[in-house]
Amino acid sequence: MTEQELGITERKEHNPGEWYAEVVRKAGLADYAPMGGFIVTRPRGYAIWERLKRHLDGWFKETGVDNAYFPMFIPESYLEREKDIVEGFDPEVAWVTHGGREELDERLAVRPTSESIIAPFISQWVRSHRDLPMRVNQWCSVVRWEATETKPFFRTKEFLWQEGHTAHATHEDAWAETMTRLGQYERLYEEVMAIPGMKGRKPEHDKFPGAHTTTTIEALMPDGKSVQAGTSHHLGTSFAEAFDITYTDEEETERTAHTTSWGLSWRALGALIMTHSDDQGLVVPPALAPTQVVVVPIWQEDTETAVTEYAADLAAELDERFRVEYDDRDGRNPGFKFNEHELHGVPLRIEVGPNEVEEDGATLVHRPDGENETADRDGIADAVEDALETVYAKLYAAAEENLTENVREAHGRGEILGTIGRHGGYVKTGWCGDEACEAEIKDEIAAEIVMLPMDRDEEPIHETCGVCGEAAVETAYFAKSY
Amino acid sequence: MTEQELGITERKEHNPGEWYAEVVRKAGLADYAPMGGFIVTRPRGYAIWERLKRHLDGWFKETGVDNAYFPMFIPESYLEREKDIVEGFDPEVAWVTHGGREELDERLAVRPTSESIIAPFISQWVRSHRDLPMRVNQWCSVVRWEATETKPFFRTKEFLWQEGHTAHATHEDAWAETMTRLGQYERLYEEVMAIPGMKGRKPEHDKFPGAHTTTTIEALMPDGKSVQAGTSHHLGTSFAEAFDITYTDEEETERTAHTTSWGLSWRALGALIMTHSDDQGLVVPPALAPTQVVVVPIWQEDTETAVTEYAADLAAELDERFRVEYDDRDGRNPGFKFNEHELHGVPLRIEVGPNEVEEDGATLVHRPDGENETADRDGIADAVEDALETVYAKLYAAAEENLTENVREAHGRGEILGTIGRHGGYVKTGWCGDEACEAEIKDEIAAEIVMLPMDRDEEPIHETCGVCGEAAVETAYFAKSY
Repeated sequence: MTEQELGITERKEHNPGEWYAEVVRKAGLADYAPMGGFIVTRPRGYAIWERLKRHLDGWFKETGVDNAYFPMFIPESYLEREKDIVEGFDPEVAWVTHGGREELDERLAVRPTSESIIAPFISQWVRSHRDLPMRVNQWCSVVRWEATETKPFFRTKEFLWQEGHTAHATHEDAWAETMTRLGQYERLYEEVMAIPGMKGRKPEHDKFPGAHTTTTIEALMPDGKSVQAGTSHHLGTSFAEAFDITYTDEEETERTAHTTSWGLSWRALGALIMTHSDDQGLVVPPALAPTQVVVVPIWQEDTETAVTEYAADLAAELDERFRVEYDDRDGRNPGFKFNEHELHGVPLRIEVGPNEVEEDGATLVHRPDGENETADRDGIADAVEDALETVYAKLYAAAEENLTENVREAHGRGEILGTIGRHGGYVKTGWCGDEACEAEIKDEIAAEIVMLPMDRDEEPIHETCGVCGEAAVETAYFAKSY
Repeated sequence: MTEQELGITERKEHNPGEWYAEVVRKAGLADYAPMGGFIVTRPRGYAIWERLKRHLDGWFKETGVDNAYFPMFIPESYLEREKDIVEGFDPEVAWVTHGGREELDERLAVRPTSESIIAPFISQWVRSHRDLPMRVNQWCSVVRWEATETKPFFRTKEFLWQEGHTAHATHEDAWAETMTRLGQYERLYEEVMAIPGMKGRKPEHDKFPGAHTTTTIEALMPDGKSVQAGTSHHLGTSFAEAFDITYTDEEETERTAHTTSWGLSWRALGALIMTHSDDQGLVVPPALAPTQVVVVPIWQEDTETAVTEYAADLAAELDERFRVEYDDRDGRNPGFKFNEHELHGVPLRIEVGPNEVEEDGATLVHRPDGENETADRDGIADAVEDALETVYAKLYAAAEENLTENVREAHGRGEILGTIGRHGGYVKTGWCGDEACEAEIKDEIAAEIVMLPMDRDEEPIHETCGVCGEAAVETAYFAKSY
């Protein structure tokens, strides 16, 4: 790359959309595919997704989830079986009509989600209460033919995700499952991605079709828009009834199971990039960075041997505990290297020059803010550990500040519109429960109700609806969203 | 499950095809999907695939391979660009023609393999010799619309695999890469799957279209048929020329890169099941078994407490080093449990009854052959480690014996046909290099040339072709194959 190609030219504050696209491309995370709506996830981007996946997959397995793999195609008649419950994904489905040179007797949908192919198998596998809970998950790609502008990881026709599908004996068990998975998504965002989330329910009109309750984690982006970070559905008995998922209980009575489904997609990767990155490029927390530490030797002709030997030795020691790159490339000056590693989001840079050698130390530079600290050579690994924890803490603190400062209360149509218009973020208000009141706000300012409090019995924040003034039954969180 | 459902009714020796299908279904590895040619990989099957994947993926990463993800669809015009080189996969492609309710302007192929979508990107990413070698790999599913009978993991229209794609400065570098990956496939088969393989080249007429050399690992199944266990292609410069993959060398001269591709699919899972399993069900080596050790307490009313406490304690200790199941289910007698764990392929069963408690020991039973050994309670974990190694060694020895006993030499049409007809396995013979001689054997007995020796300069085993009697240029290995 040339110096010019390294630079991010757009500004996050002024052009968040173009800035995001530029970071994704220049940091080598993804390229646009030849077909509109599709992307190529490059090694740097995929490596972060793999780490996200590994964390979540580990937690799933610790809590009784088995991975499986179902076909990527679903016969049209199977999708039709959902029709009693749901409008379905029809308008968004990619259809396979030909196999080789033959036209197929029945069209096959490329899966937009797999309830309709997984539920019939769970129905076969579950016979008695001893088979419950049954939990299967798959990591796969799905396709939804949406005709919107492509935004890597946020809006793509094909995306990678995991979808978990479970069956339980009781409504309460299914609810506990729904919350366990939502809790794991929240943990992923907070502990691994350094992004605080807010948990809540989606309003009735925005639930997964047929679901009893759709729960969500919402994360606030720096541009004031909310991202649906992960979703967990209590499906009640609607899918179990449609697909005949029943079990015999301990008294040999046949009962209908209660099911859930839950998913997290590579949108998480989009939220990660968007939240922490800056005008120098990608910023990611240490747990997700493919390279956590880069060691850069800085020398003149007369100090080359002393510096490079010292730096190489230091890098080798750190390599036992961290993911380290020792950057001794010839023909690139330190400034170029600094820029490149900043672009690529390496959380910690260690500079080693003649001074560091003389003082038996090292200079540690934090990626998010450029803060410098000097560390002794002795015990350097512990100092690096501390520095990486500090980097995580800085990222989390900034994201948390963005969230806490941007949840506001408003009442009355004008105040709601004005508050979101001026500040973005969330506006809490009383809500009568009528979709029409949401539509009114949506039409004006493209903000919608992104969540309601998890507790259905919570008293609404205001006695009346912030839009129409009728009696409020809920507190609604309005926001613009991705 | 009932007792009856646990039993494998077909015999491996007499009906290998039906026996295989029964093991796959009853051991809970896979079910047939509603569309012909597709399967559902159940948790027990997928867990083995995940372990295979983890081994191979670890070795790839240690040797410079990065994972990435490319779109599952390829525009028809991109596939056409390969046409100069290859006949193409056209007759086997599943076509997406509609997105939602709209017909697409250009049909999209569901990837049958990804050279034609990956090569254009490697072409963009490679500029100078400093960018080489470039290695990307993806774990994904591919679709080939073959109209043959479904055999889970061996023949399915959709299958899971990894496909690696690399670019190099020289022919030699690309050859070294080709052999590195083939060596890793061999290692997977031998060290992890306990199946010896034979490495060789495919004949010209059976190479990957456009390839300079297609190399293969062949594994011999107990029914005498060969499985192409993994494939690694030296693509020469043909794809680089078609897709313009060039680089500037150190003298700033533009040169054409040399590329490779290599893949291993879930056919490996099929080969694993087929090789080691028996009339009691699944048998897998310890490294791949989701449960490595099952502890079964055996008690009468008066010994229950003593036995279950002792067994639970033993299981807990082993759980720190192995993947252990403690099977204290009520309402299932030990015989039922033994059968079930044998069906599921648990490599080692530990029986604990009053005798074992009294003698402060445990009885270890090897899955492959039912061999019993007694071990002291003290140091039980080391005894289990040894027993698992013994299980691996037994499986490997049996597979190795099958291979070494079934490579035979033959010369003359009648002898080749007779030898394969009587014994199966491989028949080595001189070959003139003419596809027609292979066709003659194929027509008679459905055996083909599965490989040639890796070394092109190796002297042929006979001076004349075993089929036509003309001068031999190669040694050919004939076998029936999956």
